[in-house]
Amino acid sequence: MRNVTVYITLKQGVLDPQGKAIQESLNSLGYDEVKDARVGKYLELQVEDGPNLEERVKVMCDKLLANPVIEDYRFDVEEAVRS
Amino acid sequence: MRNVTVYITLKQGVLDPQGKAIQESLNSLGYDEVKDARVGKYLELQVEDGPNLEERVKVMCDKLLANPVIEDYRFDVEEAVRS
Repeated sequence: MRNVTVYITLKQGVLDPQGKAIQESLNSLGYDEVKDARVGKYLELQVEDGPNLEERVKVMCDKLLANPVIEDYRFDVEEAVRS
Repeated sequence: MRNVTVYITLKQGVLDPQGKAIQESLNSLGYDEVKDARVGKYLELQVEDGPNLEERVKVMCDKLLANPVIEDYRFDVEEAVRS
């Protein structure tokens, strides 16, 4: 079993109203040092080991997890720790 | 200026229907090797340098960014690269 961690972020230049709202909320709470906030998604997948795992995760991202028109993604694959 | 990256995840044991939906969608697309999916948030903040920066980010997470009842968070602080 592998732990796959996927980070999905908006491409540079794409407006991020949710991030803007977070920045303004932090500013209004007195955290004026926050000058920008961008929101992304973070996914943890448990994937069974197999051939072409990275290639398959890439296709999953392109087809379902991210919107390649407006989002970038990257992922890490790690051996799962049995608990 | 510092780049602060915040990772927010649901605590273990908290149901994640969005993750379940993603897992089932991947399975129905033929990616049967995906056994679990959990969804979190990923935030990139641009924060002006100042005293107690880490302490202040921690309070921001507790007060606004995360819900400490059901979510865990962790964050990294890095020197911002000027482009």
